[in-house]
Amino acid sequence: MGRLKRNERIAAIVKILSDNPNRTFTLSYFSDLFQSAKSTISEDIVVTKQAMEKANLAKIETITGAAGGVRLIPTTTAEKNQKILTELCHRLKEKDRILPGGFLYMIDVLYSPHLIHSLGEVFACQFDYSEVDYVVTVETKGIPIALMVAKAMNLPLIILRHENKVTEGSTVSINYISGSSGKMQRMSLSRRAIKPKSKVILIDDFMKAGGTAKGMVDMMKEFDAEVVGMGVLIGTKEPEKKLVSDYIPLLILEDVNEEKGEIQIYPNQNLIL
Amino acid sequence: MGRLKRNERIAAIVKILSDNPNRTFTLSYFSDLFQSAKSTISEDIVVTKQAMEKANLAKIETITGAAGGVRLIPTTTAEKNQKILTELCHRLKEKDRILPGGFLYMIDVLYSPHLIHSLGEVFACQFDYSEVDYVVTVETKGIPIALMVAKAMNLPLIILRHENKVTEGSTVSINYISGSSGKMQRMSLSRRAIKPKSKVILIDDFMKAGGTAKGMVDMMKEFDAEVVGMGVLIGTKEPEKKLVSDYIPLLILEDVNEEKGEIQIYPNQNLIL
Repeated sequence: MGRLKRNERIAAIVKILSDNPNRTFTLSYFSDLFQSAKSTISEDIVVTKQAMEKANLAKIETITGAAGGVRLIPTTTAEKNQKILTELCHRLKEKDRILPGGFLYMIDVLYSPHLIHSLGEVFACQFDYSEVDYVVTVETKGIPIALMVAKAMNLPLIILRHENKVTEGSTVSINYISGSSGKMQRMSLSRRAIKPKSKVILIDDFMKAGGTAKGMVDMMKEFDAEVVGMGVLIGTKEPEKKLVSDYIPLLILEDVNEEKGEIQIYPNQNLIL
Repeated sequence: MGRLKRNERIAAIVKILSDNPNRTFTLSYFSDLFQSAKSTISEDIVVTKQAMEKANLAKIETITGAAGGVRLIPTTTAEKNQKILTELCHRLKEKDRILPGGFLYMIDVLYSPHLIHSLGEVFACQFDYSEVDYVVTVETKGIPIALMVAKAMNLPLIILRHENKVTEGSTVSINYISGSSGKMQRMSLSRRAIKPKSKVILIDDFMKAGGTAKGMVDMMKEFDAEVVGMGVLIGTKEPEKKLVSDYIPLLILEDVNEEKGEIQIYPNQNLIL
C-alpha cells in the first residue's frame, strides 16, 4: 500500500482493532504494515486510545514488554445499555408477537446481526473473561447471540447439540429435564471440543425454569470445566427460584397476557455498565 | 463527550462504521454526536475514505442528497483471500481431523469467531447483495458463518430448523432427501419469517451431493422467494454433478484418505476478489 499519513494510519489501526476485539496486535505488526517506525505507531496508538475513550466507544489497552502490543476491549455505558435494551423491549412488546401458549415470536430479533452484535458487547461487560477459555451455548436460537459474545471476548464458541452427529466424532451425551415442559431432552458434545480444566461462560437466549441451563452446567461437569458465568438474553420473572442461580438476564419477562395482548418486559436494572 | 480533535473524530467514525458494515449513517448523525459542523464531518469522511482504500481495508461510500450519508462496504483482495483460505486449508489438513467414515472434524474452525468474520467478508464479496433481503441457512454447523455473512451484508439471518418449535408460530415444513445419505429429512420455517417476493442468499458450511441445498431451494419456493446466490464454505469435488448448480464454494475438498491419513483440500481459484 502507499504511504499513509498519520490520520490515515489511525483510521486503519481502528479498523483492524475493531474487527478483532480482544486480540493483541504487536507494534511490529503495524510498523511492518505501514512501513513506519515503532515510535510513530506508538504515537498513533495514543491518539487512538484517547479517541475511543473520549467517545466512549471502546477501551484501548497497551501491553508493554516483549509479548506486548495493543488491543481493543469492548466497553459499554449505562446510557448505551439503557438505549439498546429499552429499544429491544419496545420491539418485543409488539402484541402480534404473542403465539398460542403465551410464547413470544422473537427470531427476527435474535437473528438480527447488528442488534445482537451490540448485545454481545453488553454481555461481554457483565463478566470477567480474562481467564475464560470458551463461550458455550445450546442449539439453536441462542447461537447467534452466543457467537457475538464469543467474538467480543475473542473466545471460541462451543455449541451443544440435541443429537449426535457423525461429524463430531466421539461425543458425551447427557439427559436433562426441560424445567418448564418437564420433558426429557438430550444434549451432546464432541469429546474433543473442550480441553480439561477449562473455564467457560454459558450463554442462552431464554430461561424460564432453568432446566436447559442446568443441563448445560451438568454437561460442563462431564468435561471437568468450570462455569464462571452464565448469561441469558431474557429471564422470566416467575418462577423466581430457578434450577440454577448466578445467571445474568439482560431483560426480565414478567408476563405475557394472551387475552389482553400485553407483554410486560423490561431491562434488568442490576447490570454492570 | 468532550470535544474531539480531527484525528479523534476520524478514529471514532471508523469504529462506528466498522461495527456496522453496510449501514448508512447520515452526516447529521456524526455532526450531532461530535457537535461539529457537517462540512467538518464531510472532510473527516474524505480522510476516512482515503485511509480505508489506500490500506485495502474497506470501501467507504458516500451517498449525497436528502437520504444521503456514509457507509462502509467490506472488501477483500486476492492476496487477503489467498492468505485466509490457504491458512484455513492448512488447518483442515491436520490428519487427526479424520473421523470414522471419512468425515472431517471441523467445528473448532466453524465456530472460531475471528476466522468466520473474515470468511463472512470473503463470501460477501462473491455476491451482488444490493437488492437481497435475507441470508438463509439451515441449522446447525453453518449458522455461525451465515451470521457473519449476514452481518457483513447488513441483512437479517433466517435459520431453517429440522423440527417445528412452539416458539416459531405456524410453520411451513418440507421433506427432502439428504443427497449423500439418501435419508429423508425435514426442514421447517416460521410462516412469517420471510416476506413474499423476497430475494435471498443461501449459505451453508458443506456441500457434497447438494441434497440439503436443494431442500433449501425448495423451501424458498414455498415462500415465493428468489434465490440469487448460494455459497458453501466447503464443496466436495465429487460428485461433480450436484443437485444444485450455481453455488460458490470457498474451498474444494478433493479427497479424505482414511488409511493414509491424507486430506486434499484447496481454495477455489475462481473466486471474485
